[in-house]
Order: sequence, then structure tokens, then C-alpha cells
Amino acid sequence: MTAPSTGPGAAARHPASAARTDAAVIHATVAAVRPANRAARRRAQVELDRKVKPVGSLGRLEELAIRVAGATGASTPTANTPAIVICAADHGVAAQGVSAFPQDVTAQMLTTFATGGAAVCVLARQAGAQLVVADLGVVKAPQHVEGGARVLDRRVRAGTADITVEPAMSRAEAERAVRHGIDLARELTVEGIDVVALGEMGIANTTTAAAVTAALLGVDPAAVCGRGTGVDDDRLAHKVTTVRRALARHTCEGSDALDVLARVGGLEIAALAGVALGCAAERVPVVVDGFITGAAALVAAQLAPASVDAMLAAHRSSEPGHSVQLDALGLQPLLDLQLRLGEGSGAALALPLVRMACAVLAEMATFDSAGVTSDEVG
Amino acid sequence: MTAPSTGPGAAARHPASAARTDAAVIHATVAAVRPANRAARRRAQVELDRKVKPVGSLGRLEELAIRVAGATGASTPTANTPAIVICAADHGVAAQGVSAFPQDVTAQMLTTFATGGAAVCVLARQAGAQLVVADLGVVKAPQHVEGGARVLDRRVRAGTADITVEPAMSRAEAERAVRHGIDLARELTVEGIDVVALGEMGIANTTTAAAVTAALLGVDPAAVCGRGTGVDDDRLAHKVTTVRRALARHTCEGSDALDVLARVGGLEIAALAGVALGCAAERVPVVVDGFITGAAALVAAQLAPASVDAMLAAHRSSEPGHSVQLDALGLQPLLDLQLRLGEGSGAALALPLVRMACAVLAEMATFDSAGVTSDEVG
Repeated sequence: MTAPSTGPGAAARHPASAARTDAAVIHATVAAVRPANRAARRRAQVELDRKVKPVGSLGRLEELAIRVAGATGASTPTANTPAIVICAADHGVAAQGVSAFPQDVTAQMLTTFATGGAAVCVLARQAGAQLVVADLGVVKAPQHVEGGARVLDRRVRAGTADITVEPAMSRAEAERAVRHGIDLARELTVEGIDVVALGEMGIANTTTAAAVTAALLGVDPAAVCGRGTGVDDDRLAHKVTTVRRALARHTCEGSDALDVLARVGGLEIAALAGVALGCAAERVPVVVDGFITGAAALVAAQLAPASVDAMLAAHRSSEPGHSVQLDALGLQPLLDLQLRLGEGSGAALALPLVRMACAVLAEMATFDSAGVTSDEVG
Repeated sequence: MTAPSTGPGAAARHPASAARTDAAVIHATVAAVRPANRAARRRAQVELDRKVKPVGSLGRLEELAIRVAGATGASTPTANTPAIVICAADHGVAAQGVSAFPQDVTAQMLTTFATGGAAVCVLARQAGAQLVVADLGVVKAPQHVEGGARVLDRRVRAGTADITVEPAMSRAEAERAVRHGIDLARELTVEGIDVVALGEMGIANTTTAAAVTAALLGVDPAAVCGRGTGVDDDRLAHKVTTVRRALARHTCEGSDALDVLARVGGLEIAALAGVALGCAAERVPVVVDGFITGAAALVAAQLAPASVDAMLAAHRSSEPGHSVQLDALGLQPLLDLQLRLGEGSGAALALPLVRMACAVLAEMATFDSAGVTSDEVG
């Protein structure tokens, strides 16, 4: 079921010069990522403490506003113009029977994204978010649906190879996928998007995300394999074995995150890492969704540790490996709704909170402006 | 600082006949409250299971949609036209020095609600919610601010009496306040409001809410007293002692919830209980905020146990007594953001989730309609 990584089409897409360019773009993007702007954080904190409410009484909403201030460098940032970027791809490891759904579903879901019927489409409309769907390498390229939204063609190859047998892709392909993500982030920020939520689609990608997470964090696959869309005990055990086999086949220790992507990763995970890096470089906050986008966040964090300062964790997925990722990233999720759908659904649900946190910072009156007594009773 | 419950103004407001009418209205409203519509819940569950996603993968968002279906009786309910109802009043027990803020702040905050600068105003705008502010008995009636929103005059008396000295109010006054809440709920539902969030303002009302909660649940005041807007250890200990003194002075055991309100309650808590009952009777979901609105929810639940089926818990407040209330009500909060502001801020933050849950149920494609393979891999 996996596609070759070479051949005329692939060669045309990835000439050696473009591969060098991709690496250079990634390098420059990583170099442009700066840590949180402490002055903006301080100004936001001071301003929140003047607001007409007991100090700190909006709890984590205040922390969120301060985090966005730090990420953007603005003391009164906005999050009014969100986009949700869904990167989709297929995974050769699906051939190992690790998912509850057949691989065709990836392409079918791309069509459902385009026609507006998927969960994330509903949630994006509710959140007032632009939905951007990019095909990084679904086995069978989706057909455009009349009247539907366009799926961006950012195909690097027609699905990865089976990581239990060979590397998922070449390093050049991994770099190309990351580069696509960086470019997507740049295009959106140029358009005026002020917050980007990460979403994904790819049958078997919890297996790939588990392999990437285990490789990057050096943890046991059993700690990061979960039921994904809903596999039973037997298939969960098989999933752990599959990840172990993949990690045993490829030497990931001592590799950089791009090599890890190439050996055991996925095209959408690579692209999403690029989106995170591109956003961080442009000082646009990135809302991380669940386990797959969490793996992409880990890749971004390994390449540019300061990119984590641009990340907001939307929710704690019921996929156990997600908590391992959040701990490693030092991120506290906003929601805990036992979601395990993916698509960016959790990130979409968190967008109103991000927008509301920024609005509180920008719009609330202060004790002075409201003429409210701030002196505490003696 | 507390106002008399009699005198010409009070007499004109509460003639004996009106008091009887209030009791009759409350009785009729309580009698109209029905439990969740099981058929609507089942239809919503069946529909969610057909949606193009793994069964149950939207976790608590699905439970929320099903709960709203049960509350409303509609299998595809909406929550697109929300209102936030803030009931405000003063508390005689403020004279005991239980709050970090002086009593004048209640009236000042009403002005801030009217002029749009309070946290809940910002959040209501973001949530697309109509903000309704009612004065149930602030010591000094607020002046209308030119250009500001109107504060509804639903004054029952100019603040309650100090519950460590005498009953907060008469039973007739408690009934009048509950009646005002029922009427507010009816007016909003007639307008087409499809979800109502509860909010409140009243300096010292965490002390009153602790007394009501301890009396209704028979728990130790120490278990339900917290730092409110931010008191220190000494004042927290004093708060516990104050609630103990109030409960020792009044016999609450064996009383109905209206008597508990009259003895140790607050006017805004009574009115909010009325809003909850009125909404439940009209099959409109009620989003409960924090500890004060939680006390109102307990009152409503004691009067009409089935009214709990209409309630949605927005968040878990950092006020410890709130978790005691949620456990007693059997409600699971949607958010846990360490909020302790009140005003309805937590309920406002949860409104987008309620709306999104309903939208998922109404708008998502099914496996059939999307043409996606639902057969799991064998």
C-alpha cells in the first residue's frame, strides 16, 4: 500500500537543489524563533492586575492572556482571526493492521473536510476560524468536489513506507514536508491570521506519532501507545509491538528530529512541525491539538526549543501518550474533555478561550477607569 | 449597614396578597419541572453514533450535546441565543468583615456591568450573549448611567440583614426574590433565548453561599468556606466562625429551601434559584457558574430535584465549597481554569462549548451522507 519515494513524479518534486533549499529554509526559520517576550508578558501582567476584579481571580485565563502576550510580543494581543491547518497524509504502517479503520478513510475524510461535514468543519465555523486543509501525501490524491473547499496540494509522496520494513521517507522528503508547513504558516500570517490551530488526518498516525514520541523522548512505546480511534486490547498490544519493531529497525538515538521524522515519522507530522516553527518565527501563537499534533510539537521543540513559548495546549487527549508529550513540553492543557478524534477538534474547541483571554486583557476596565474601590478592607 | 425589611417602600413592594401569589407561582413552576427527556437523549445518542467519527471520540462534548437534548426535549437542540443573567444584592453579613472588599463595591460593579467594562461584559460580547443585570437589593440603588445598559429594578429590600444577628429576610421576601427570578427566566425564554447562564454580584456572598450550602447539605462550614475574592488565613477562619454563628442562631434543619434562604440566604441567590427553576420549567438549559450560583442551584434542586437535569456545570471554581456542591448535584464541570471571580465569568466561558456541542449534533455529516467507510477493519 505504500508508494515509492522515487520515480519521475517524485524526482520532479524533490530535485537535489530544492532539498538544499528546504534545509536552508528550515535552518533560517529555526534561527528566527525567539523565546517569549518577557517585557510583553510583564506589561500584560501589570495590566491584568489593574483590571476591575480581584487580582488573579480569572486564574488560568489570565495565564493564557499573558502567554499569548509573550508569544506575540504584543501587550494586548488579539486572537480574533484564527485558522485551523489540517495536514493529511497516509502511513505505510497501516499495512500492519494497527488502526480500526481502513486506509481509504484518509482520502474520504479529506473530501469530508472539503464539503464541510467533518467535526472540525462544524467547530471551525463556530469558532470563526478559516479551515485550511493540505494533502501532504495521501495514497490516492483527492478529487476536487464541486462546491467544496479546495484541498491544498502539498504532496511530497503518496504515503510513507511501512516503518517496520524501511524508513518512512528520505531526509529530503521530511525536509520538504517541514518546508511546506513553514510556507503554510507564512502564507497565513501574511493574510493576517493571528492564531493557528493544528489539525491532522491520517489513518494509522497514532502509531507513527507514538514512534516519533518514543524516539524523541526515549520512552517505552507502551507508555505512548493508546487506542487511537478505538482499537481493542489485542490490537493495542500489536500496536506496541509494531512501534517496538520500527524503533528496533532504525537507529534514532542521537539523531536530530528531522532524521527521526524520516525514519519513523509521517508527512503530516513533519508539515505540522513546520507550521509550528513558521508560526513561532512569525510570533503567531500555535494551538496544539492532541497526540499527533503533539508529536509535531515535539519535533518543533527539538529543532527550536523556544518554539514551545508560542504553543498553547488546547486539551488533554484521552490518548495516554499525549500527557507524556505535554509533560515533556511543559504545557498545561486548557480543556480535558476526553477527546480522541483528532482533526484539530480539540484545538478548535479551545479557540474561543484564547480569543476571550485576549479580549479580557484588551477590553476590561481598570479599577481606576471604572471608579471602583480597589482598596481592600483593612 | 443592613436595611430594614419593613417601612413604607417595603410594604408597598410586598403586600400580603403578592406574597401569596409569589408562593403560588413558585409552586406552579416547581410542579412544571420535568426530568430529562429520555427519548430526546436517545435520539441524540443514536445520531452522534452515526456521525463521521469514531463512536464516542468527542468524549464529553457528546455527553454535553446529549444532556442539552435531554434538557430541552429536542433531539437537535440549539444554544445559539444565550443570555447571561446577573442577579446582584448586598449582604448584611458584610458588617462582620468577611470580605476583602467594602460593600460599596456591589453597587459600583453594577455600574461597571452597565457600562460594559466588567469581565463578564467582555466575555458576554465574545460569547454573543445578551447580558441581563438585575438589582435584587443592593443597599444603595444604582443610578442609570447615560449610554449604559439598564439595570433591571427587581429590588426586594435594600440588602439582607446580618445573619449572625437576625434572619436575612422574611420568607415572603425570599419568595418574592425567587419569583423575580422565575419571571426573568420566562421573559428571556419568550424572547427566544435558548440557553441561560447564571451570574451574580454581591460583596460577602461567598459567606452567604457557604451558609446556604452548609444548611442544605448538612456539611461543616469549614468544608464550604474558601477565600472568596481573596481573604487571608485569619479572615478565612473568621469566615468559618461567622457561618457557624449564623447556623447556630437559626434552625435550618428540617426547613425547606425557601426557609433556608430566608434565614441565612441572599436575595441574588434566591433570584438565581428562581431563574434556574423558571428555565427548567421552560426546558431551557441553565449554565451554572461558580459557588454562589451553585448555592442557587442547590436551592432549585431541593425545591424541584428534576431541575438538575436542566443544569450544565460550566467550571470547577477554586472555591473549595464549589466541588462539594457539584458532587451533591451530580454535575461534572466542563472547565477547570481556577476561576474565582464570579459574575458569571465561568459560565460565559463555557457558552461556546455548549453551542459547539449542539452544532456537532446538528451539522456533522454521517458516515452514510459523507460516503466514508465506517466498517472497522476486521
